[in-house]
Amino acid sequence: MVLDKIVSALNNSRKIAILPHISADGDALGSSLALALALAQLGKSVKVILEEDIPQVYNFLPGRHMSEVYALKETSYDTVVALDTGDTDRLGKRLEIFRCANVTINIDHHNTNSGFAFHNYVSTDSSAVGEIIFSLVKMMGVNPDQDISTCLYVAIITDTGGFRYSNTTPLTHRTAAELIENGINVAGISQLVFDSTSYEKVRLLGSAIQALELLENGKVALISLTDDMLRSTGAKEEECDGIVNIGRNIRGVEVAAMLRQWENGEIKVNLRSSSKVDVSAIASSYGGGGHKKAAGYITKAGLDAAKKKLLDDIREVL
Amino acid sequence: MVLDKIVSALNNSRKIAILPHISADGDALGSSLALALALAQLGKSVKVILEEDIPQVYNFLPGRHMSEVYALKETSYDTVVALDTGDTDRLGKRLEIFRCANVTINIDHHNTNSGFAFHNYVSTDSSAVGEIIFSLVKMMGVNPDQDISTCLYVAIITDTGGFRYSNTTPLTHRTAAELIENGINVAGISQLVFDSTSYEKVRLLGSAIQALELLENGKVALISLTDDMLRSTGAKEEECDGIVNIGRNIRGVEVAAMLRQWENGEIKVNLRSSSKVDVSAIASSYGGGGHKKAAGYITKAGLDAAKKKLLDDIREVL
Repeated sequence: MVLDKIVSALNNSRKIAILPHISADGDALGSSLALALALAQLGKSVKVILEEDIPQVYNFLPGRHMSEVYALKETSYDTVVALDTGDTDRLGKRLEIFRCANVTINIDHHNTNSGFAFHNYVSTDSSAVGEIIFSLVKMMGVNPDQDISTCLYVAIITDTGGFRYSNTTPLTHRTAAELIENGINVAGISQLVFDSTSYEKVRLLGSAIQALELLENGKVALISLTDDMLRSTGAKEEECDGIVNIGRNIRGVEVAAMLRQWENGEIKVNLRSSSKVDVSAIASSYGGGGHKKAAGYITKAGLDAAKKKLLDDIREVL
Repeated sequence: MVLDKIVSALNNSRKIAILPHISADGDALGSSLALALALAQLGKSVKVILEEDIPQVYNFLPGRHMSEVYALKETSYDTVVALDTGDTDRLGKRLEIFRCANVTINIDHHNTNSGFAFHNYVSTDSSAVGEIIFSLVKMMGVNPDQDISTCLYVAIITDTGGFRYSNTTPLTHRTAAELIENGINVAGISQLVFDSTSYEKVRLLGSAIQALELLENGKVALISLTDDMLRSTGAKEEECDGIVNIGRNIRGVEVAAMLRQWENGEIKVNLRSSSKVDVSAIASSYGGGGHKKAAGYITKAGLDAAKKKLLDDIREVL
């Protein structure tokens, strides 16, 4: 079995690099740090090499001292493990480390994974790569301690939206049960991951609500976010993430849209559906993409024109 | 064991009433409807008798057709089961039904439970009464179907904040794993329970953010909610619940307060702490109460005076 071969390969390695995908999220980071902590317990020299700094929200993760941002020099690792990474494009500049390694390992749960390594383990039934690493760590003979368990718990809760998404399985919950038995602080971690936000983001939320338009008898919610709104609230670009859900979560809303006007005039449109409407079809007609319930596209039309055309598109499918 | 005796008592009953506590929440309702559905499978005549209508958010619960609001007439039940009810005050007008029954049963998880029934089963380790009912239903020989499982899942996620509170145990997760195996729709239920809100509440949120004051170098967040704000947004009184968390969730905030000025001039103050500050001590000094991290009181001072005095109190303990 592939996981057994991966355990052997890791056992036979001396110096190991772990690579989460670019713009690493909770699953990529948590899984990487958990594996690093476990390998360190086995006496391995191990580093988690990141493309960018760890996002502030994950600054509490145990094992973060074993990570560093790639500085384009060190590439001399026996073995390189890519985690939560669908293809080599998602390794960014660190593809160089991957190319120079003797043994390459790819552990992932995306069904689009291209199988780019020597050892490839892709489990599409796993809610998070953290679930796979939990098995792997135990197969390596390491008892997951509180630190490893905290990293894996963060991996799982971020990729399942706190056990709320449809990818949550019985095994997801049974893994969480064991992680709690290993002594993690459920309430503390949950507060840090889900209920901790910047003042600027809260102010942006307030502006977004002021700007929210409820149309078509409450079936459509539109939010336009301008540069002025970001400037006056002090919020950062990435803090626009999730704002579209304010609209989606209103009872009766079938389609929610967020139009984000960039400084260059382009407009990024995020769409959400909470009904049978397939928003990916709308996004495709603009050259965008996504899923039935979450999609997006970029348009060069002015804000008013973009909004009008989008509303026409939505009206046709409501 | 008490649960065995409860199973016997239920087996020997013909007509059973189930009573959740007044202002029934997700655990009280979900547990009651799950038990009702299971008893109906055993051929019992069973009703869930409520003090008030089911809150809108729980209108999707299977088994709600087996519930009715108490109309002060029917009291002829062999057996009455009080669920999630710490003492008889929490039965409201339905205490009459309880008094007239041959056999009374009390199943709860509050450590303050007064043991007011003939059979009392109080498990303070259970995150939700739903966890207890899951065991009870299986002891009764009923295989929890999708409907029963949906009710029990709602019971558990509402009392644990979606597996985020410190009362979440390994057994909580293992129960959730079995409920998923019984065919529940995790994403659909989670959306209805956690991510579904009224347009009016969203507008109130927007007003609350506009009114939010960040003081003491970002360590204190104050929100004042006036009747004008409720009127202009159309939000209901109960939709003020949780608004204080906007302040608590801002990084760096140690104490958050919401001051809600009622029409009679009284001010209800909700306090939250995300640090070592014990807000129940502040609340006590006004004759209020609560826990270290969540407390409240009512004051008759004017809004400005109440705010000033509260800020003085907070400054002393920061």
